[in-house]
Amino acid sequence: MEGESFAYLEGLAKVVRYFILSCTTQAGSGHPTSSLSAADIMTGLMFGGFFLFDPAQPGLPNNDRLILSKGHASPLLYALWAAAGQITEEELMTYRVFGSPLEGHPTPHFRYVDAATGSLGQGLSVGVGMALNARYLDKLPYRTYVLLGDSEMAEGSVWEAIQIAAFYKLDNLVGIIDVNRLGQRGETMYGWDVAAYGTRVESFGWEAIIIDGHDFAEIVAAFRKALQVRGRPAMIIAKTVKGKGVPAIENKNGWHGKALNQEEADAAIGLLEPFDRKLRGQMEKPKDVRPEKTASRSVPGPAYRLGEAVATRKAYGEALKRLYPAFPDMVVLDGEVSNSTYAEIFSEAYPERYFEMYVAEQNMVGAAVGLSARGKLPFVSSFAAFLTRACDQIRMSQYSDANITFCGSHAGVSIGQDGPSQMGLEDIALFRSITDSVVFYPSDAVSTEKLVEQAALLRGIVYVRTTRGTTPVLYGPREEFEIGGNKVLKGGAQDRVAVIAAGITLFEALNAHNELAKAGIPLRVIDLYCVKPIFSSSLKDSLGPARAVITVEDHHPEGGVGEAVQSALAGTEIPVYSLAVKRLPRSGKPAELLDYEEISKDSIVKKVKELL
Amino acid sequence: MEGESFAYLEGLAKVVRYFILSCTTQAGSGHPTSSLSAADIMTGLMFGGFFLFDPAQPGLPNNDRLILSKGHASPLLYALWAAAGQITEEELMTYRVFGSPLEGHPTPHFRYVDAATGSLGQGLSVGVGMALNARYLDKLPYRTYVLLGDSEMAEGSVWEAIQIAAFYKLDNLVGIIDVNRLGQRGETMYGWDVAAYGTRVESFGWEAIIIDGHDFAEIVAAFRKALQVRGRPAMIIAKTVKGKGVPAIENKNGWHGKALNQEEADAAIGLLEPFDRKLRGQMEKPKDVRPEKTASRSVPGPAYRLGEAVATRKAYGEALKRLYPAFPDMVVLDGEVSNSTYAEIFSEAYPERYFEMYVAEQNMVGAAVGLSARGKLPFVSSFAAFLTRACDQIRMSQYSDANITFCGSHAGVSIGQDGPSQMGLEDIALFRSITDSVVFYPSDAVSTEKLVEQAALLRGIVYVRTTRGTTPVLYGPREEFEIGGNKVLKGGAQDRVAVIAAGITLFEALNAHNELAKAGIPLRVIDLYCVKPIFSSSLKDSLGPARAVITVEDHHPEGGVGEAVQSALAGTEIPVYSLAVKRLPRSGKPAELLDYEEISKDSIVKKVKELL
Repeated sequence: MEGESFAYLEGLAKVVRYFILSCTTQAGSGHPTSSLSAADIMTGLMFGGFFLFDPAQPGLPNNDRLILSKGHASPLLYALWAAAGQITEEELMTYRVFGSPLEGHPTPHFRYVDAATGSLGQGLSVGVGMALNARYLDKLPYRTYVLLGDSEMAEGSVWEAIQIAAFYKLDNLVGIIDVNRLGQRGETMYGWDVAAYGTRVESFGWEAIIIDGHDFAEIVAAFRKALQVRGRPAMIIAKTVKGKGVPAIENKNGWHGKALNQEEADAAIGLLEPFDRKLRGQMEKPKDVRPEKTASRSVPGPAYRLGEAVATRKAYGEALKRLYPAFPDMVVLDGEVSNSTYAEIFSEAYPERYFEMYVAEQNMVGAAVGLSARGKLPFVSSFAAFLTRACDQIRMSQYSDANITFCGSHAGVSIGQDGPSQMGLEDIALFRSITDSVVFYPSDAVSTEKLVEQAALLRGIVYVRTTRGTTPVLYGPREEFEIGGNKVLKGGAQDRVAVIAAGITLFEALNAHNELAKAGIPLRVIDLYCVKPIFSSSLKDSLGPARAVITVEDHHPEGGVGEAVQSALAGTEIPVYSLAVKRLPRSGKPAELLDYEEISKDSIVKKVKELL
Repeated sequence: MEGESFAYLEGLAKVVRYFILSCTTQAGSGHPTSSLSAADIMTGLMFGGFFLFDPAQPGLPNNDRLILSKGHASPLLYALWAAAGQITEEELMTYRVFGSPLEGHPTPHFRYVDAATGSLGQGLSVGVGMALNARYLDKLPYRTYVLLGDSEMAEGSVWEAIQIAAFYKLDNLVGIIDVNRLGQRGETMYGWDVAAYGTRVESFGWEAIIIDGHDFAEIVAAFRKALQVRGRPAMIIAKTVKGKGVPAIENKNGWHGKALNQEEADAAIGLLEPFDRKLRGQMEKPKDVRPEKTASRSVPGPAYRLGEAVATRKAYGEALKRLYPAFPDMVVLDGEVSNSTYAEIFSEAYPERYFEMYVAEQNMVGAAVGLSARGKLPFVSSFAAFLTRACDQIRMSQYSDANITFCGSHAGVSIGQDGPSQMGLEDIALFRSITDSVVFYPSDAVSTEKLVEQAALLRGIVYVRTTRGTTPVLYGPREEFEIGGNKVLKGGAQDRVAVIAAGITLFEALNAHNELAKAGIPLRVIDLYCVKPIFSSSLKDSLGPARAVITVEDHHPEGGVGEAVQSALAGTEIPVYSLAVKRLPRSGKPAELLDYEEISKDSIVKKVKELL
C-alpha cells in the first residue's frame, strides 16, 4: 500500500542479518551470502502477518508450513526463529556444533523443521505433499511455503513438483524463488533473468509474481497477491542480491558457502547500525481447526487357500485395501503403474485416499515425505527398477524421520521378456543402505499381506519387494511373520547345506529340495522374508545342523540377500555361497533367465552337490 | 507442399504397422499400440529424406542418430529397420526371444541402438550428449532425433534435458513427442492438449511445432521446418492416436503393453490391405565427413612428496588435467560443484572439453551416456551424495554398454559440519551393484592419480570415491595400483588381526597401528584402494598370518567395504567384523563424527583388543 511503513520489517530484517552473520562467523562455516539474499522476503513472510503459526505449539495441525528447499540457507532459518524469539542468541551460537539441533543443513532435530533439506530441488515436492494433505485429506486452511534457490531450478524434480501442484490445483502452496544470480561456482543458467523463470512457471499453470526481493512494499504486495490466487499455486520470483546487506561481498562470485572472519563480520554488523538487536517479531496465530479423525476399525485377516497361485504384487494391493480401515491415516501413491503394482485395488476402493503421481517418481517420494510429516502413513509404489529414480529422495527421507512404506514390484529377471530396463536388481541394496530401514521380501500372498500389515505398524522406512509372476500360497492364514525372522520350510537332522532364499528363488530352492530328496540328499530351505534386519541368533537357529549356506536371489550379489546373510553370519565359521544375478540380463522367458543367471533349481542342485 | 503425394510414405507406414502387429503377436507381448501411434511420424522421418544414415556403416561418425526414449515402442523401431530392409522378416519374428538382439526394450545388442531405453524420460538427455558432441567436440553436421512419449514428459529429467539443450543452443537436436493421450493406466495429465506441451517447451526456449501425427503433409512440413531452426532445438509435438490403424483398439484404455492374439492381428492386418508387404524404404546417406583426431601424447607421472597433505578430490582434478593429452577423447562434466570436486582444474585448463551441466545430475549422466556412445571418454563428477540423484541413469548406463568414469567427492561423515544431506554414505553400494563395474577408493593423491589413469584405460562403468579433507601422501610416484588389488601398509609375522580400510579410515587404522605398537600389539593394515573387483587370492595373500579381519569404512555397512570384503572371503573361515556408519550422522567436526560412528582410531583399537 502506498505510504505504508515497513520500519518494523526493516528493523527485523537487520536483526535477521545480524544473526546470520554472527552464527556463521562463530561456526567458521556455513552459507551467509545465500541466507542474506532471502532475508528480506522471509522476514516479510514470517512477520508481515502472512505466516500463521503458533510457535508454542509447532504440532498444531493448522499451522502454516515452511520448507527451506535451499537448505544451505539454514542460518537464515535459524535467524528467523531467533528473531521470532523462539531460540536464544546463545542457542543460535551452537550452529553446526556437534549435538546441536541447528545443523549445517536443516533436519527435524530442530523443532521447526518438518523435512531435512540440503540436497537441492526436493523441497517443493515435500510442499506438494503437505498441500495435498491440507486440501484433500485433512481439509484444513493452512498454507505451505517453500523457499527455493535459483540454482536448484535446474533440478528436474522441481519441475515434477511444479506440474503436479498445478494438476492438483494447489492454491494453498506458495513457492518463493530467491534469484540471487549466483550458484556455487558462478552464474546460474539464467542469471537475473527473472522473466525467464516467470514464463516457465506460468506455462506450467502457476501464477507468477515477479518482485524486487529487497523492497518490502513489493514483498508485502506479493504475499497479499499470492494469498488471493485461486485454483492454482503461486510462485513469487524475487530478484535478490547474494550477500545483500554486506557491501563487501554483495553479488560477488567466490563467496558461496564461506563465513566471514570475525573482523569482517564485525565490520558488516557495524554497517547494519543503527538497529535494535533486541527487537523480536510476532507471527499471527492460525485458527485452531483440526482435521476430522476417522476411528480405526479391526479388519479380517487375509483369505487365501494353500497352493493357490497369487502374485505377491497383487497381494500387496489386496492388503492395502483390507488394512485401510485399521489404518485410517493410510494414503497410497503410485507413479502411473498402479495396474502393475496393483495399488489400483486400493485406489478403486478408496479413491479419496489415493494420489496418482504420474511418471515422476522423485516428486512422488518427496510428496510422501510431506504427507508423512503431516501424520499420514504413505504407501508408495512403482516398479522396483523405477524406485531407483528417486534414490536421492529416499536417501533424504531417512534424515526427515519419515514414515513411509515403499513397494517395488517386478523384482528381478523373473519378469522375463520386457528386459533389463524393467528389472529391479539393485533395489534391495538401495533400501538396505538406509539407516534403520526394514526390508521385506515376501514369497507368497499370505506373507505379503502380513508383512504389509507389519509395515503399517512400523515407524520409519520400510521396503516391500514384490514379484510379477504368480507363486503358490505357502502359509496358512494364522502364520505370523516377525521382523528379523525367517521360516524353515524344509529341514531335518541330516541337513548339511541350507539354501536361504526369498521371492521367486524360494520356489527354485523348494524344487531343488524335491529333486535332491529323490536322490536321498537332504537340503534345508529357509524363507528369508525379512532381509533387513536379520537377527543373527534366529538365523543361526534356523540353520540347525547345516554347516554351509547357499543364498539364491533374483538381484545383483552386491548389497543383496547374500551379503545380508554374510553380514548376519559374520564372525561364524559357516561359509556362505552366493547365487545371484551376475550376468547382464536379456529379454527372455522367466525360466530361461533364471537358468541363464544360474539362480534356478538346476544351479542350486549343482552347487549343493559341489559342496557335499 | 500442396499437391505433394505421400503414397510412398503411406505404403511404407502400412508395412511398418504390419511388422509391428506381426512381431508382437508372435511374441505374445510387447507394446503394439504405443508403436502404432508413432508409426507415421517415424516413417516420415526415416524415409521422407530427413534421416541421413548409411545402414551399411552404422558406425559412420556423421550418421544421424535416433533415440527411442519411449523404449517400450521397440516394435516400431525394429519394424522401421525391417522396412528399411536392414533386418529380415524372419529376424523380426525373434522379437523378445531369448538371445535375440530384438529385446523387449531396445539395447545396443541391436546394431542400430546407441543407448538402452525403457526407463522413461532418459532418452532426451542421451540425445543432448550426442548433440553436444556434434556441435562442440566432433564438429559434425549430423542431427540427433529423439522420440518421446507423452507420459514421460512428467519426468523431471526430460525438463533438465530441455533446459540444457536450449542453454547450449543445440539446433542439431530434434525432439518428437508422440501425444497419444493414454499412459499405462489411463489418461496422461494433459491428454490431447498439445498446446500445453507447446507452451511449456517454448517457454524453455525451444521451437515448438505442433502437428497431426498421422498427416504426412504435416509430418513432412514439420521436419522441414525443424531442420531450418537455428540457435535452438526443435520439438515436434504430434497429436496421435494410440493403436492407430487398428480400429478395434484405437484410442482405447486397457490396451497398453498388450499384444493382439493371432485372430485379432490377422483381422487388423486385413484392414491394412491393400499394401505391398515387400515395399522397402530408402534412407538418404549423410556426407562422409569425419572429426579431426587429436593424437595421444605421453604425459608425465604425478608429482607429490611423501607425507604432503593433499585432498584426493584435488588429486582427481589434477589427474584429469595431467592425463588429457594422453586421452584426447576425454570430456569432463560436472553438476555445478566443480570448485568442490576440483573438476575445475580441468575446466580451466581445457575449457573446450568441459561441459557445465548445472544442478541437474540426471541429465548430466544421460548426456554422458550419449557422449560415450559417440566414442568419447566422459568423466562425470558431483558430490557422492548427489550422484544418487542419477541412480536410475547410472543403472541404465550399464545396459547401454557405456564407458563412463564417475567421481563422487565428499564421501562420508568426514565432511563434517555440512551434515548428513551432503554425506555420501551409500555410493559404494550403488556403484558396486552395477554389473562389471569397477570401484576405486583411493586414500592419497598418488593412488588417486594412478587410479584415475586406470579408469581412463578401462572400458565400462568406473567409480572413483574421493574425500573432502586432506590426507598425507602415502605412496611414491612409481607405485602401481592393479585392479582387484590392495596394499599391505603395515604387516609382520606376528599379526593376528588385519584392518582393511580405504580413504579417510585408512589413516585411522594407521594411527591405531601406531598406538597398539606402543603396547606391543601388532596390527596389520591393508589399503583396499579397489573395492570392486576384489581378487580373493590377492586379498587372502595380503592377510598373511592374520586370522581375523576388521573392516573400517566411512559408509553405511550395507553394500560397502565390509560386505565387499566378506564376499571376497566367503567360503573361508576368517571372520570379518565391520566398523561402519551405523548411526544417523549429525553436523559436527570430522573427528567428532568419526568417533560418534565408531570408525575412528579409538574404535579400531577397542575392537582389536576385543578380538585378541
